[in-house]
Amino acid sequence: MLHSLSLTNAASRIREGSLRSVDLVQASLDRIASIEPDLDAWALVDFEGALLAAERCDTQAPSDTRPLHGVPIGVKDIVQTAGLPTEAGSGFLRGHVPEEDAHAVTRLRDAGAIILGKTATTEFACFDPADTSNPWNREHTPGGSSSGTAAAVAARMVPSAIGSQTGGSISRPAAYCGVVGFKPTYGRISLRGVYQVSYSLDHLGPLTRSVDDAALLARVLTGHDPGDPFSVCREDAFTRDDPSSCDAPRLGMAQAFFLDAADADVVAATNELTTALIESGAELSTVAFPRSFRDVHKMHRLVMYAEAAAYHADRFGRKPDTFRPGLRSLVEEGLLLPAAAYIEARRHKVVFTQEMRAAFRKIDVLVTPATPSPAPRGLHSTGDPAFNVPWSYCGYPTVVLPIGLSSESLPIGIQLVGQPYDEARLLAVARWVEQQVGFEATPDL
Amino acid sequence: MLHSLSLTNAASRIREGSLRSVDLVQASLDRIASIEPDLDAWALVDFEGALLAAERCDTQAPSDTRPLHGVPIGVKDIVQTAGLPTEAGSGFLRGHVPEEDAHAVTRLRDAGAIILGKTATTEFACFDPADTSNPWNREHTPGGSSSGTAAAVAARMVPSAIGSQTGGSISRPAAYCGVVGFKPTYGRISLRGVYQVSYSLDHLGPLTRSVDDAALLARVLTGHDPGDPFSVCREDAFTRDDPSSCDAPRLGMAQAFFLDAADADVVAATNELTTALIESGAELSTVAFPRSFRDVHKMHRLVMYAEAAAYHADRFGRKPDTFRPGLRSLVEEGLLLPAAAYIEARRHKVVFTQEMRAAFRKIDVLVTPATPSPAPRGLHSTGDPAFNVPWSYCGYPTVVLPIGLSSESLPIGIQLVGQPYDEARLLAVARWVEQQVGFEATPDL
Repeated sequence: MLHSLSLTNAASRIREGSLRSVDLVQASLDRIASIEPDLDAWALVDFEGALLAAERCDTQAPSDTRPLHGVPIGVKDIVQTAGLPTEAGSGFLRGHVPEEDAHAVTRLRDAGAIILGKTATTEFACFDPADTSNPWNREHTPGGSSSGTAAAVAARMVPSAIGSQTGGSISRPAAYCGVVGFKPTYGRISLRGVYQVSYSLDHLGPLTRSVDDAALLARVLTGHDPGDPFSVCREDAFTRDDPSSCDAPRLGMAQAFFLDAADADVVAATNELTTALIESGAELSTVAFPRSFRDVHKMHRLVMYAEAAAYHADRFGRKPDTFRPGLRSLVEEGLLLPAAAYIEARRHKVVFTQEMRAAFRKIDVLVTPATPSPAPRGLHSTGDPAFNVPWSYCGYPTVVLPIGLSSESLPIGIQLVGQPYDEARLLAVARWVEQQVGFEATPDL
Repeated sequence: MLHSLSLTNAASRIREGSLRSVDLVQASLDRIASIEPDLDAWALVDFEGALLAAERCDTQAPSDTRPLHGVPIGVKDIVQTAGLPTEAGSGFLRGHVPEEDAHAVTRLRDAGAIILGKTATTEFACFDPADTSNPWNREHTPGGSSSGTAAAVAARMVPSAIGSQTGGSISRPAAYCGVVGFKPTYGRISLRGVYQVSYSLDHLGPLTRSVDDAALLARVLTGHDPGDPFSVCREDAFTRDDPSSCDAPRLGMAQAFFLDAADADVVAATNELTTALIESGAELSTVAFPRSFRDVHKMHRLVMYAEAAAYHADRFGRKPDTFRPGLRSLVEEGLLLPAAAYIEARRHKVVFTQEMRAAFRKIDVLVTPATPSPAPRGLHSTGDPAFNVPWSYCGYPTVVLPIGLSSESLPIGIQLVGQPYDEARLLAVARWVEQQVGFEATPDL
């Protein structure tokens, strides 16, 4: 089935000439037409524009500088797209059509990708849920804030889509929906043209159905953007080469916190996985976290609330009625925070980010469950980001991938955490783990 | 006169064996005994300890790893010194004796320097003046907050001393007292063990009587300290090699602001200097500043007030009566600042820091007057840091050096601003300017 093709496969078949972009895009659009009414994964699907772009692609010769030539992609609706409405799940932005693409979208288009549409998000990527359901069970949340991004990829509506994370908004929906979520190091992907939550915590990243697909997208998306003051300028980009191979990774498990807070299904799946990985040659050691870990969740919340409130203050003052209860109370609380408390939190963030390095002295990658439980029942909340928050806070790169199904047949994910700027090693380990796991279940749609 | 020896000369004479440390230290102590009562440059002079240390030095062979072997140095009294009282000009810290040296002091001692004493500072390096007078005219301020540091060096009590800067606390007293003040790039010198003003604006740096002396001290003081989370870790340190030579530097003058705000003596001295530098081979071009420059002073104040208040909140709560009026109102105002305003200022700081790079595209060094006027009359205020604040804010390195005397026989300084982490080029240009100027006046004491 064309709509189930992976990103890497689809891109290479188009490049080889054995697949037309227009057929691939049509397959995605047909799939969306058939199942979107039950899932609500999209804020907007650009049926006409995507087909036109695909037809144009099919008249052009593929080239090495366009690794995504003719492949459709979804983009979270907080990321601005020129000429396509960008509403960020918000009443405030109803009908808003940006004039310019976000930097990340420019990179996607330059690489040949076709923007299929905008995926549903919680309001301004915060708390108030989108209507999206979980493709594995429509009574369960797909997670958030990248709700539509994860659901669309899991439901084979599109090979990949772009999400964003401030707490756990890539990792959690990836885990809940049984797909791969990759959050590179803070600053690797430009945030120019993206509606913010919290500028010192926000990340963009791809959700896909394989680690290879995530790596391919990351190579396209990452790189210094002088137009984003928080974009990092580094020579050690992993953008040029494929991640190296890996056979006996040194894995670390946290001494405390994660397994204590996870439910029985998640603990069992995690332990089963690590046992299998050791049998396959991995080393596994226990890692002590710095004392500053203790305050991470409290300080993360403070930084997020203060920065989000600063960012939304003007909009909130002008049209408070467009703000739903979750975002409203975030802004109201955030505006009351004193600078002194925020400054202490920012100091703590720097200290934790630096102290965490010691935990990686003898390991390649840290392993934790991706979420405390599989996707919870109900669409009123998008679930608990507690296991993802520390890595948004310190900006270390993470990959989430599915490792099995729960007793309720909902996906369970593992979270791999790498060292800052060492995405190449993280992806190599993630690919190795993916091969050991061999997860092949798909939602029944 | 031994007490007038430059740091570099003193160090090489000791190394060659033609000067004993104990004689050099005794000369400094004699000089202090004779003129300190009129100047109040020191919070504390360690007469006994310094002589003991000098005697110990004279029994040891000099070594290449101890470039300051046997040379006395002053340390601003916000920098902690093990076993020597550190009061930061504050009633709160009266009688406080630290147990550990600040990282910078450890580096000085490891390099063989002898801590002669603690130089007077405004209260916690903020606004409330020390008793220090300007060696050129005792009715004028020496500037601040590194008041005693500048006065002691200018008065030939010690070849060099360590100051700190959050707004203009190295550059301004250097200019007012006719000495060299060097502020390396933010993060180059560890701040561990230094009482803070504002952690994102604070810098340590040497005050000396020549650029060579400043470079020598900077080589000792700079380098990554894992114990200071804001210490930068970079390969391009200028710590290993002497700055390269320079013959035709490309200088830039700001289009606006500095000369508009300077008094007639300062404008005349600056113009005379630039004319002479062009005749000596320099290129001089006018540099446009980014639009973000407009808000620099307002935002710098906001960041400083918020961070200083956060830092002092606990002390202020416990012993408010020990806080003098300037620091008290700083803390009271800072504690009322909302996080949202601070966050906007921090964002602005990042934007300005990045946008200023464009101003350096065609120049090596930016040239501005160091202060709007020579040292003002009166000891109730330490003068105006407006010309130094932008470089504390963006963390770019600066050198201030004396270029002449005003109609009232007070020193006038020039400020050279380099690109971040390019101290080698900045120092090379500063040495070239110093040679062209040939400033040799000394205060009459």
